[in-house]
Amino acid sequence: MRKRIITISREFGSGGRTIGKMAAEELGISCYDRELIEKVAVETGFGREYIREQGEDVPARNLFAYSFVGRGVDGLSPEDYLWSAQSKVIWELAEKEPCVIVGRCADNVLRNRTDCLNVFIHASMEKRADRIVRLYGECDKSPNKRLREKDKRRKVNYKYYTEREWGMAQNYHLTLDSGELGPERCVEILTTLYQGEYV
Amino acid sequence: MRKRIITISREFGSGGRTIGKMAAEELGISCYDRELIEKVAVETGFGREYIREQGEDVPARNLFAYSFVGRGVDGLSPEDYLWSAQSKVIWELAEKEPCVIVGRCADNVLRNRTDCLNVFIHASMEKRADRIVRLYGECDKSPNKRLREKDKRRKVNYKYYTEREWGMAQNYHLTLDSGELGPERCVEILTTLYQGEYV
Repeated sequence: MRKRIITISREFGSGGRTIGKMAAEELGISCYDRELIEKVAVETGFGREYIREQGEDVPARNLFAYSFVGRGVDGLSPEDYLWSAQSKVIWELAEKEPCVIVGRCADNVLRNRTDCLNVFIHASMEKRADRIVRLYGECDKSPNKRLREKDKRRKVNYKYYTEREWGMAQNYHLTLDSGELGPERCVEILTTLYQGEYV
Repeated sequence: MRKRIITISREFGSGGRTIGKMAAEELGISCYDRELIEKVAVETGFGREYIREQGEDVPARNLFAYSFVGRGVDGLSPEDYLWSAQSKVIWELAEKEPCVIVGRCADNVLRNRTDCLNVFIHASMEKRADRIVRLYGECDKSPNKRLREKDKRRKVNYKYYTEREWGMAQNYHLTLDSGELGPERCVEILTTLYQGEYV
């Protein structure tokens, strides 16, 4: 069976979003990342900044609660409502057209479909630190501290909503070290796989 | 920099060994798997069966101890002696010639080298169960039970000797779902990457 959708999960600073955009462009299909936030904003009425922040990373203030507390015991929290609306948008996109979807646990939201190629992009701390300083500049926190915090928030969010471990090879069809392989080669592997037939 | 070595870690039943052999053949380099056991037997004097069993999977009887007890507090156990000799053989092979090395935590043994492409091969429980029954036949235990036990023994062994999580994407340059992509396409990706230049 051919694949219609590529889902990209990625470590912050690994260039996974850029790789997704490049692959989509080469394949002539849409890439949903910021565009997804727009759609979720229309669906929920929530602000774009809130959706961007909350849509895939647990806010630092909630880390403890998300790590230890089960969900859904007392109706939907705003975060759970966002999760549910976001999942609906992702599902509708996958139904509508072949596309690349970046982040937001799309691999898990679409887990029952057989037409998704699920990918995880990562890189060493050193390469990611270089990249975020180059792209986003310096700030009070050291790059390594920013990366560790972001990794933790994303990991906890993934675990909370999917009950799986973020970054475990078994959750994806392939994972790539973009720092070692380089973004162009990652794009080449994705586009070649996307165009092939599967077992 | 070009890569000289491919290390392959793999889930039992995923066909990782076969993929390693096929890639090596296509690249015209050696593949060390059973041949590695021979070399370790010469180095240590241990029996081949013991090395095969103990060289990368914790024996079922030792699972508890390996999960909770630190090592090296009272000199070398036979298992630690085997680990050390096996690591030496792996290091010497990597020095001697370009090759594929299957299993035995070679990714970690060679972690300080920059000329290794580290790969993890996995597949769904269902695909692996089909494969082991086809290749090794049925036995008293159900295929799923055999796989779960083997996964656990390999995971604990990896953690014990490397202090890292077996199967985490971040430990490898790429991971591939051989059940989904098919062995031929995995071989194609490996040989293409091996022959390319890196960042």
